[in-house]
Amino acid sequence: MVATDYEIYVNSSDPEDPIFALHRGGKMEIAATVPMLNAEDLAMSYTPGVAKVCEAIVADPEAAHEFTWVANTVAVITDGTAVLGLGDIGPAAAMPVMEGKAVLFKQFGGVDAIPVALATKDVDEIVETIVRLAPTFGGINLEDISSPRCFEIERRLIERLDIPVFHDDQHGTAVVVLAALHNALRVTDREMSEVKVVMSGAGAAGVAVTRMLMAAGVRKISVVDRQGVIHGGRDDLNEVKMFIAEQTGHWAKPGSVSDALVGADVFIGVSGGTIPEAAIAKMAPQSIIFALANPTPEVDPEIATRYARVVATGRSDYPNQINNVLVFPGIFRGALDIRATRISEGMKLAAAMAIADLVGDELRDDYIIPSPFDPRVAAAVAKAVMDAARREGLARRPY
Amino acid sequence: MVATDYEIYVNSSDPEDPIFALHRGGKMEIAATVPMLNAEDLAMSYTPGVAKVCEAIVADPEAAHEFTWVANTVAVITDGTAVLGLGDIGPAAAMPVMEGKAVLFKQFGGVDAIPVALATKDVDEIVETIVRLAPTFGGINLEDISSPRCFEIERRLIERLDIPVFHDDQHGTAVVVLAALHNALRVTDREMSEVKVVMSGAGAAGVAVTRMLMAAGVRKISVVDRQGVIHGGRDDLNEVKMFIAEQTGHWAKPGSVSDALVGADVFIGVSGGTIPEAAIAKMAPQSIIFALANPTPEVDPEIATRYARVVATGRSDYPNQINNVLVFPGIFRGALDIRATRISEGMKLAAAMAIADLVGDELRDDYIIPSPFDPRVAAAVAKAVMDAARREGLARRPY
Repeated sequence: MVATDYEIYVNSSDPEDPIFALHRGGKMEIAATVPMLNAEDLAMSYTPGVAKVCEAIVADPEAAHEFTWVANTVAVITDGTAVLGLGDIGPAAAMPVMEGKAVLFKQFGGVDAIPVALATKDVDEIVETIVRLAPTFGGINLEDISSPRCFEIERRLIERLDIPVFHDDQHGTAVVVLAALHNALRVTDREMSEVKVVMSGAGAAGVAVTRMLMAAGVRKISVVDRQGVIHGGRDDLNEVKMFIAEQTGHWAKPGSVSDALVGADVFIGVSGGTIPEAAIAKMAPQSIIFALANPTPEVDPEIATRYARVVATGRSDYPNQINNVLVFPGIFRGALDIRATRISEGMKLAAAMAIADLVGDELRDDYIIPSPFDPRVAAAVAKAVMDAARREGLARRPY
Repeated sequence: MVATDYEIYVNSSDPEDPIFALHRGGKMEIAATVPMLNAEDLAMSYTPGVAKVCEAIVADPEAAHEFTWVANTVAVITDGTAVLGLGDIGPAAAMPVMEGKAVLFKQFGGVDAIPVALATKDVDEIVETIVRLAPTFGGINLEDISSPRCFEIERRLIERLDIPVFHDDQHGTAVVVLAALHNALRVTDREMSEVKVVMSGAGAAGVAVTRMLMAAGVRKISVVDRQGVIHGGRDDLNEVKMFIAEQTGHWAKPGSVSDALVGADVFIGVSGGTIPEAAIAKMAPQSIIFALANPTPEVDPEIATRYARVVATGRSDYPNQINNVLVFPGIFRGALDIRATRISEGMKLAAAMAIADLVGDELRDDYIIPSPFDPRVAAAVAKAVMDAARREGLARRPY
């Protein structure tokens, strides 16, 4: 870019802050993978040569996934309504998060991710816009779209599109939590089917984690929102929470989160807020606490460690960091490489088991999940996802 | 990407053809401009650090253009309805062209261009989709959208958006043709206001070239489509052609392209088809022929050279190659760097003059326009565009 003295006009930031310095000009760029230095290059990569490639795609649409970058791209799409803990900050302000996610996609999965911020919050408009964009991308990663709108948007897109659609706030979280819980139960020698789980949060992440844990065999689960345990007797439930009430009704009893925690084996927080120490103290022996709110976990890790045997957070400065970056790069790497038509429950379960298995014999109370920077993770997840997709007949491309 | 043996399934292409080999996997990728190697990087470029940048943009939306890549991005958007000479081949088959264009944007203008192929041909839907996408990009380059739909789409987007919208097939062509004609008249010592021009083609390029030449002083111009000269007596004219008929009515007479060429000084072809040699022979002495159809010019360059003093084509294997790549990288480089609210006629005229001026004292019959690979061009165009925008009060950012 041409040098500017625009900096002096931006007074919303401290120019000494290294975070702003790092972000200046954005965090990503386009790079050509072909030369374009002379007339011959132009004739090969652009007109007239490119016409041959266009005609090959007209003859066989699948060739678009062989001869364009579409095969390796994912749109990271938001409407800016639920960005980090900041809430509905709008599409422009969401872009730094989408760019960061795109950098993670490339770094860990080799996926070319393109940030897309939409200037609409209307569910119909969001769905229609993404459907119209679909020929541009190999997959769709929905990001930071508020609950419960996110459920309908994802469901309708999956129905309309034949490329993978994945709301990472839901499924990325669910997969990595399942991986961590699998190993936490292994280290404490218990089974999914017997443990009593309290799930704090019934937004995008909470609902998806609940569904995935039940798919993995958990039966005794109470889901808690700000009004307490979700149960069929409440009259303030939206459609998704009514579904949760039905699914968990054989176990969940009316009450507060503190009530639910009495005798519970597992607490999983994706809600923010603070759980009283007295409630944590009443959990069962050898309890497991995943306090995932960032930057302030629902249970202070110092307090959690006092009562629980296994503690995990979303933070990098404590052991057992539960981070979606373990999931989405490998999920999309695998899905793109076999041209999966969608991302199934089986593919997500396989991804969770692949992550859990990497811990192997090194399993300890404070090592139930690989580091987000473990270089083995994305490839292992991709392989598990491809194997599962192939078994389920969802792969359009052999590998 | 994981290695595949998918190649054997693509039978629409010859694996020995170097054009297909070059296109395999596409022509571009995303590259990170920040490190993401450890927990500290993650905390700076992603959560929790990125939240500061989001909040700065909430406080001052203009900060999005300082701290995200949006400031340097252009969407190259098509609906696949008028791709090269191939016509309506659809969005997927248009992608190789959009990628090639994106590579040119980066190579010549340092602009990060993102190919976008839309799965709709409906004008309203295209406009609404692009309006919703606008927070994602610093500018919109419309590409290969069929005429006359392209005129309405561009007009409505310019009304709705405060970022530059530029239909390159129209204005890129118009700017580079004006630059070339300016120098062709200089070398033959004539004025825009006196020459008799025959414009063959009344699609996107033909209409835009006509408008720009008239803005630059041309008065005697006949615009020809497949039915002959456009004039008010015809009953087959769409809205844009009626406008052309009105604008050129004081000069243009009913007749064929051959009729119009009798005594004409300048022929400009952006239509395809073939002009009979007998018609070219009847042009005025010292005539100028720009036969820009690719790969087959409307007048064979060997024939053109026999009758005309200055001959230009769109091809790289003849002198005087008239190529949009001289225009769009510099136009958007300049427009992005000053955050122009739109691309005005004045900015386009300034771009044309900047291109023409680079030829300087080396002006000859066979050197009226710089090479597409002349490294001076984009910077000169960008500077001219920025100066013009500033004069017209269209610049949001000083430079």
